[in-house]
Amino acid sequence: MAAPRMLQVAIPIFKDVTALDFVGPYEPLHALPNVNVVFVSHSKGLCDADQALSFQATATFDEIPSPDIIIVPGGKGTNALMTDKPLINWLRKAHETSMYTTSVCTGSMLLGAAGILKGLEATTHWMLMETLPKFAAKPVKSRVVQQGKVITAAGVSAGIDMGLKLVALLSDEKTAKVVQLLLEYDPQPPFSCGSPATAGPELVAIALALAEKNMPELKHEGAAILEN
Amino acid sequence: MAAPRMLQVAIPIFKDVTALDFVGPYEPLHALPNVNVVFVSHSKGLCDADQALSFQATATFDEIPSPDIIIVPGGKGTNALMTDKPLINWLRKAHETSMYTTSVCTGSMLLGAAGILKGLEATTHWMLMETLPKFAAKPVKSRVVQQGKVITAAGVSAGIDMGLKLVALLSDEKTAKVVQLLLEYDPQPPFSCGSPATAGPELVAIALALAEKNMPELKHEGAAILEN
Repeated sequence: MAAPRMLQVAIPIFKDVTALDFVGPYEPLHALPNVNVVFVSHSKGLCDADQALSFQATATFDEIPSPDIIIVPGGKGTNALMTDKPLINWLRKAHETSMYTTSVCTGSMLLGAAGILKGLEATTHWMLMETLPKFAAKPVKSRVVQQGKVITAAGVSAGIDMGLKLVALLSDEKTAKVVQLLLEYDPQPPFSCGSPATAGPELVAIALALAEKNMPELKHEGAAILEN
Repeated sequence: MAAPRMLQVAIPIFKDVTALDFVGPYEPLHALPNVNVVFVSHSKGLCDADQALSFQATATFDEIPSPDIIIVPGGKGTNALMTDKPLINWLRKAHETSMYTTSVCTGSMLLGAAGILKGLEATTHWMLMETLPKFAAKPVKSRVVQQGKVITAAGVSAGIDMGLKLVALLSDEKTAKVVQLLLEYDPQPPFSCGSPATAGPELVAIALALAEKNMPELKHEGAAILEN
């Protein structure tokens, strides 16, 4: 059997990215021997997820023009990048030749800004579902939404589920199952409150108030979720 | 109400650490306003999780002698550290004054090497359960095992479950629930095979063979799991 061809996975990182958004899909994809992951940014060097945690970008956008797979993480930092030409132009161009273009959490906002979600069903963090129509996308309350080569995942931890789905798409179901076992991904959340539906209105209101303090631009969408 | 006192969380990082092992508990803990996370290592600077992903250690072991919470991640790199005096001595000493001393995945091997698991129930990655008695620990097949102030989590992704448990212990259940909702931790693994019991013997054998290629020292324990 011929060895499968090498696949390049590009993960754009930026100031105030949420680490779990990209480490979640990184771990399963990185387990494939024919996958090479590159962390791209405006310039090479350290990128602060926040004050405590910094990662290394190993390539610039220019150096990685046509990755096979694009994974756009989210986080507080996405808002500042909605009109960032180097990133948005890179996304738009790289998407033309990608096998899969994907996002986790508010990374979908950047796909939207690049025009990639136009006319597609998509998901994002539950707080921002109402924002998707701004990009001509149809919000779907699912953990992972695939529309052809565009795959979007829900908030933060949903990137793990999407990462395993990608592994299955890039190899086969059996390989994806082995990877899930290697990561011992047999989740047992301590509570049953990981989505607005299971958490109920009181916890949703507290979560929104907290998020709005950090991301005032959420206010409008938050109001829609609370149905005030 | 008085503001809760600041808590220092120390996460030792090292070459060939598994990123998800520590990013999993990092995200929920870091959501608490009174938590300050520090990434510690032998020296400050970049630390390679592997060829693709590097993180920044922001403090040396000497600079963080008595953190409130210790989270020891695992990964391929743990084996080389089993007799690493600076790390093991730091762990042993820091454990004397910690509120909680915890591990994810093969991080438990380092707790074991520091004598911290002696006489305690503990867990680790499913591949290494048989190793725990070497450290006078009693292996328990649970996602998260708490024995007083010592908490161990199963493989890789189990750190998220442990992180949320820690949040509940350090604040209260309601806060932990809000954090779970903010991380949209409503996991929906694509397959039901995240543990040896659900995966079955064929997938377990493939996973072990793959792991043994990367970590030959697993061979003995692997054999025990397969009951050859």
